[in-house]
Amino acid sequence: MTAPPTPDAAPGAAPDAATPIPGPDLGPGEAVLAFDVGGTDTKSALIDRHGLVLGLRRTPTPRDGSDPSGAIVAALAGLAREHLVDAPGIRPVAAGVSVPGLVDELNGVGIFASNLGWRDAPIRALAERALGLPVAFGHDVRAAGDAEHRLGAARGYGDVVVLAIGTGIAGALVLDGKPYAGGGFAGELGHALSDPDGEPCACGARGCLETIASAGAIARRYTAASGVAVPGAREVLAAASAGDADAVRVWEDAIEALAEALARLVATIAPEAVVIGGGLAQAGPELFEPLSRRLDSLLSFHRRPALLQARLGDDAGLLGTALAARDLAAGLDAGGVP
Amino acid sequence: MTAPPTPDAAPGAAPDAATPIPGPDLGPGEAVLAFDVGGTDTKSALIDRHGLVLGLRRTPTPRDGSDPSGAIVAALAGLAREHLVDAPGIRPVAAGVSVPGLVDELNGVGIFASNLGWRDAPIRALAERALGLPVAFGHDVRAAGDAEHRLGAARGYGDVVVLAIGTGIAGALVLDGKPYAGGGFAGELGHALSDPDGEPCACGARGCLETIASAGAIARRYTAASGVAVPGAREVLAAASAGDADAVRVWEDAIEALAEALARLVATIAPEAVVIGGGLAQAGPELFEPLSRRLDSLLSFHRRPALLQARLGDDAGLLGTALAARDLAAGLDAGGVP
Repeated sequence: MTAPPTPDAAPGAAPDAATPIPGPDLGPGEAVLAFDVGGTDTKSALIDRHGLVLGLRRTPTPRDGSDPSGAIVAALAGLAREHLVDAPGIRPVAAGVSVPGLVDELNGVGIFASNLGWRDAPIRALAERALGLPVAFGHDVRAAGDAEHRLGAARGYGDVVVLAIGTGIAGALVLDGKPYAGGGFAGELGHALSDPDGEPCACGARGCLETIASAGAIARRYTAASGVAVPGAREVLAAASAGDADAVRVWEDAIEALAEALARLVATIAPEAVVIGGGLAQAGPELFEPLSRRLDSLLSFHRRPALLQARLGDDAGLLGTALAARDLAAGLDAGGVP
Repeated sequence: MTAPPTPDAAPGAAPDAATPIPGPDLGPGEAVLAFDVGGTDTKSALIDRHGLVLGLRRTPTPRDGSDPSGAIVAALAGLAREHLVDAPGIRPVAAGVSVPGLVDELNGVGIFASNLGWRDAPIRALAERALGLPVAFGHDVRAAGDAEHRLGAARGYGDVVVLAIGTGIAGALVLDGKPYAGGGFAGELGHALSDPDGEPCACGARGCLETIASAGAIARRYTAASGVAVPGAREVLAAASAGDADAVRVWEDAIEALAEALARLVATIAPEAVVIGGGLAQAGPELFEPLSRRLDSLLSFHRRPALLQARLGDDAGLLGTALAARDLAAGLDAGGVP
């Protein structure tokens, strides 16, 4: 069972299924359904054969401690019915489902998602049965990375890292033009070691990058240093611009940690472009300019990547999920094994 | 022109062209020539259709400031003639040439090699003309990594990092079963940032991993701390085992820097195996055991790689170069574009 669309709780939802969302369309191809399952909300949409994104809506992701993946898959089936009722002329031939956490795309398994509660859940098989469609199953951040690579800021680059910096930090790698997942464990840049003497991280390690440089950490560290509660990193940046010494230090620590992480990334996989999205990227030049300067000072012969602001915003994950469903449908068309 | 083989200067050379070297053979395939051009010596051999490595020899790499790549390619042509004279029944159909430095494999260009002196040298085209054979052109460390992946310690793993730790530190990445070069700039783990407040590195950056953890750095740092000159890291490890406090600190610093670098690698690309070769790997358990323990303590949910000692030793680069030539020959057989 699923909650009906709740426009009050969904400021980003299109009010009318017939109105495509603004932004890039996906171009001609098969009609598909796309579901981007987040820790709080699930985004869903129907993509037509012109590539228009129709009926985009945001509904609460159901929580069911006894059967977390079953409850979510049932909700997806309910959403699918609503999309098909809203657009009766469109017959999707495949669906895409992306989820957070550790994801084994090859075997269609959600290995672990701390805030959704499953372990080794065969989500692809469950979703195929519930939807009656072949399902492209993937990881939310890698889907967003793929969308930024194919439709967004990193279009035209072969070796790309897409970083989403918000409450935490997650990354997606595109290498030699193709997503690289490392069995589901690659791109965990938020949990790359930054400071061996740093704070414990919720993941169980210590001094992870996201304990210093995520938007969440910036707000938390500022509050810890100043005693002033702030809703987010935006207020810390404003305080730093106004000369607040605690805010300056916390912001500069974040920039330094990010620059060092990027320098290591450059030496290791030499991306041509690093795309930064998520809430922190909204700082714009106040983030990108000092980060770029410090990165330059840390490199020598290395291949210097372009630092780019993400272009697809919050919908990147959904768009990438739709692309994956399109890829699957194209493979089915060609008689390939999905 | 090339120097003749000089057995006196080549303790590793096989005395007789008809005697295959010990170690893995390459299996059945085309006969090829292989050249692994190093900063000091060039190794060369003829590989027959059974995959036996024949006539392996080590000759000084010629230096010519006015035409560094031309002099080297001329030496390769001379070596080729010698190999063919020694084994008159064997007709190679392709050659492999690997060189150090920054290498653009796709375009067949040696971008830069500090100790050989070229910049943007079209080595593949030069070698094809001089040898009269199609040439697979590559990077010495990536060739060695490919050999460890296909014939050596990392056989059977899909996502692998091979680290050569000697005078410096260089790495080769194999991702989803294929070498990943990042335009020639990937795998430069020796020049990944270790300590932002560390020593200047010869590359122009500061605090690179190889300023702390290479065999060269271990010897140098021990001499700087103790005033005692040592020929290499082996003697520092022996002094540490005997309780010398400077040696203990220098060795522990190296282990810590390597473990931190591996932890970051694990979060970023999640290799299933990390193969360590080069002089430092000869420390065996004295390197691998503390490194493994410290790596465990730095990780949480990450995919823990197997830490493996390289198996192919000094000949890995030559074997990988021969494999690349074999691959090229197989593609030519199949009518593919090399």
